[in-house]
Amino acid sequence: MAKRGMLIVLSGPSGVGKGTVRKALFEDPQVDFNYSISMTTRTPRSGEQNGVDYYFVSKQAFEEHIKNGEMLEYAKYVDNYYGTPLKYVNQQLDAGHDVFLEIEVNGALQVRANCPDGVYIFLTPPDIKELRSRLLHRGTDDLTVINKRIQTASKEIRMMQNYDYAVVNDKISNAVAEIKNIVKSERLKVNRVMPDYLTSLGDEI
Amino acid sequence: MAKRGMLIVLSGPSGVGKGTVRKALFEDPQVDFNYSISMTTRTPRSGEQNGVDYYFVSKQAFEEHIKNGEMLEYAKYVDNYYGTPLKYVNQQLDAGHDVFLEIEVNGALQVRANCPDGVYIFLTPPDIKELRSRLLHRGTDDLTVINKRIQTASKEIRMMQNYDYAVVNDKISNAVAEIKNIVKSERLKVNRVMPDYLTSLGDEI
Repeated sequence: MAKRGMLIVLSGPSGVGKGTVRKALFEDPQVDFNYSISMTTRTPRSGEQNGVDYYFVSKQAFEEHIKNGEMLEYAKYVDNYYGTPLKYVNQQLDAGHDVFLEIEVNGALQVRANCPDGVYIFLTPPDIKELRSRLLHRGTDDLTVINKRIQTASKEIRMMQNYDYAVVNDKISNAVAEIKNIVKSERLKVNRVMPDYLTSLGDEI
Repeated sequence: MAKRGMLIVLSGPSGVGKGTVRKALFEDPQVDFNYSISMTTRTPRSGEQNGVDYYFVSKQAFEEHIKNGEMLEYAKYVDNYYGTPLKYVNQQLDAGHDVFLEIEVNGALQVRANCPDGVYIFLTPPDIKELRSRLLHRGTDDLTVINKRIQTASKEIRMMQNYDYAVVNDKISNAVAEIKNIVKSERLKVNRVMPDYLTSLGDEI
């Protein structure tokens, strides 16, 4: 039986740039873990593709998945569902592959409760002012939505304490390098390698 | 007041190459943490310098340090004392500098008990056979000493579980790169950055 893969979770406030960092990460040829595509009921933004950025589904289809216990996590966020289908994640982990999730903070807490040995990374804005500015410049949301998001983000930044690592998204290439480093280091954690190591010693001890 | 520095502890079985890895690490110009030189009562090996590799002191002088509570940790190992003088470590940590110790496993356990928020790295031989071969090739010890060391190392490998990370010393440059990565990642741990981050948010939240 293959050693079970490692679950890597990237989360952070809405507007911090999780999607951009994740895309840059998976454009790096050195990255050897698999991305689990999230499912959402929100409208695709310009340039987003179904089955690449998200699985874009109807509210009814999403609720059907919840009812059937087919979601690892899900959250309702600014009137839309976001979540991770369970099947792909389990298949990959069981086959010994590391799996990367980029999800909302409520979802990350649910995953942490079920998979405490995962690696939980919180992407933070350099400061709250920059978060506000990013949302304004994106220009896809009206002011009411933006203010609601700022309030939510303020709460979410305090949720950093539920994560293992905090990566500041000051520059995408820095954030990508730091996430790659974290994954490399986590693979050297004693609780991950000890079983293999004891086996490799065989009868010699 | 400066933020307190991080304590980084490298340990592992005798003969695994801790000293060689530590030397290579501190030859790297990117390394920005400080090395705390150990104190020992053992005879210097060929090429070793007092105040560089170790503080080489008499048994009487070492026992005086123990009596005066001036040691962070110490252990008697193959009839010699090895230990870390407390003063330098505290000065550096208080000034906000990260401090690196390369010490024996008994000493590492003592440090862990006093400083649970340090980073504990276990350097392992690729396998126990290679450890034996390294000791034989070093040619500085007689067979009785070697057999005693092999037995001790077998026990020490099981002590891996008392560490955070296991780095295999298959190639010095790999081990150095992995230790550098671990330190970088540990600096992103939420429990280390959260206080600074909350301060930086100021009144905005």
